[in-house]
Order: sequence, then C-alpha cells, then structure tokens
Amino acid sequence: MIHARKRIEIVVEQLHAGTVTELLDRLGASGWTMLPVLAGRGRQGLRQGGVPGGVMDNVMIVCIVTADTADRVIAAREELLDARPAIISLTDCAVLRAEHF
Amino acid sequence: MIHARKRIEIVVEQLHAGTVTELLDRLGASGWTMLPVLAGRGRQGLRQGGVPGGVMDNVMIVCIVTADTADRVIAAREELLDARPAIISLTDCAVLRAEHF
Amino acid sequence: MIHARKRIEIVVEQLHAGTVTELLDRLGASGWTMLPVLAGRGRQGLRQGGVPGGVMDNVMIVCIVTADTADRVIAAREELLDARPAIISLTDCAVLRAEHF
Repeated sequence: MIHARKRIEIVVEQLHAGTVTELLDRLGASGWTMLPVLAGRGRQGLRQGGVPGGVMDNVMIVCIVTADTADRVIAAREELLDARPAIISLTDCAVLRAEHF
Repeated sequence: MIHARKRIEIVVEQLHAGTVTELLDRLGASGWTMLPVLAGRGRQGLRQGGVPGGVMDNVMIVCIVTADTADRVIAAREELLDARPAIISLTDCAVLRAEHF
Repeated sequence: MIHARKRIEIVVEQLHAGTVTELLDRLGASGWTMLPVLAGRGRQGLRQGGVPGGVMDNVMIVCIVTADTADRVIAAREELLDARPAIISLTDCAVLRAEHF
C-alpha cells in the first residue's frame, strides 16, 4: 500500500535552481517542489533573503524519486555540484501512489 | 530520550489545504505546519506561484504523528486523494518530546 | 560515496529562532537553513502568519549534522526547549559531501 522512495533535498542559490531542476528532470525525476528560504548559515557565512516579500537568495528543492533515479543523481554529482548547492541530502521515504514517482 | 514518529509531507493546492488539515486533525494529528511553495513541476507540468509576496498555488503541509495515526492517514487515502495532493510522503523520524505528538 | 548524517527540523517562533541557531552553531552544526511558515496548528491552537509578504510568526529551521552533533543537540534539550519550539524532529539522511557537515 506504500512504496519505498528517496527524498532528495537540495538548498541552492535561486540563480542556479534551474540547473538543478533541469538535471533532475533529465535524470528521470517525475517532479519537484521549490520552497523559499528566509535565511541560512553555511560555509560562506550568514545569508539572508534581501528583499521582503519572497525574493530570496536561496531556495530549497524537494524531489521524491525511485532508488534508481536517486542513484543516477548521486552518479551525476559532479554536474550537480556545478550549481554550487549548499546542501544535498537524501532520506528514505514512502509514498502512497507508486505511479506518481 | 527520543521517540519514534512518522513525518508526513503533503504538497497540495492551497485551495484544498483545508481539506487535508481537517482530515489530519480528525485522524488524530496533534498539529501540522504549512510552508509556502515557490514553484513545482509534476504531472500537470510546471506550476509557479503567480503573485509575489506569499500567495502561492501550492503549499507543503508537514505533520508529525504516531505510527498509529500514520496508519489511519494511509487507510484514509481515498479521502486524502480527494484533495488532489501532488505529493504524499512518509518518513521515519524521532522527536524529543513524546507528549507533543 | 554518500555519508550518513542526521537532519534536524525545528519549528519555532521567529522571535526565538536566533536562540536556536546560536545553540546549533555552538554545538557544532556547520550550517542551517531557515524556511518561512505560512500557518500551523499545535498545542496552542491555529497560528497564521499575520502579515502578507513574508513576516511570519513561525519559521522552520533545517540543520544537517553528524550523529555526534545530533547527540549534543539532544543532550542540550533543556536549553533548546527554552526557545519554546513547537516541533523538534530528527531524521536519518545521507549527504554527498562529508566535508560539508
């Protein structure tokens, strides 16, 4: 009734988000969701969205994929890192509808 | 010191978010958090929040529940799917305070 | 090629977010990401961001750390709870670049 998948979470500059989503599309992800980021601290120090009202420096991209697609994303790490993501993490998850992912 | 729970993540049109949160409330979830979504790609193509400043087409609802409540959510899948969610995923997690969930 | 980490997710009033991020910094987290929250329901009832355009009552802080740092966060639970977070959850995840976390 539920089906094992991988949840990929990527934090990246909004400027480079298209590079990430195009790669996910090409590697077989059936979809993704992009969330706004208010602020963050990482290797490059503190970063805050400069403009009130939604224009932020970073976005979070969440993408749920099969294990095979996740393996392709991991194998494409060099290309993915070209977008200079702050974070790439993978988590095991389950979905209700296998046909959607 | 930490307690196993399930994290349910649902992406749904903001218009139908109330249907989802009412269902979660009724099935015993002690709470939920709703995040704005900037953009997404899914079975119906690309979707972007049209209005700058927070009014988005989709939202992400995050809800942490006991395994029993998660089972009830899975069992209510038909009702949940009436809200036409783009994504429903479940992940194992742990919480610090058992009494909150 | 991928490395096990813990993903900590904390929902807290924006007013107290600095207390949380300072604690994460001090305990050895290499970074965190703060997301805006549109609305939520918890032990204190329904809560909605009052001002359109990004000023929200609550934020979600996501932080990926080593198991050792996660243990320190759990051990510091009393201090963390001083910020009155609505939710603190931990999930197993994997990252591509061990040196970043």
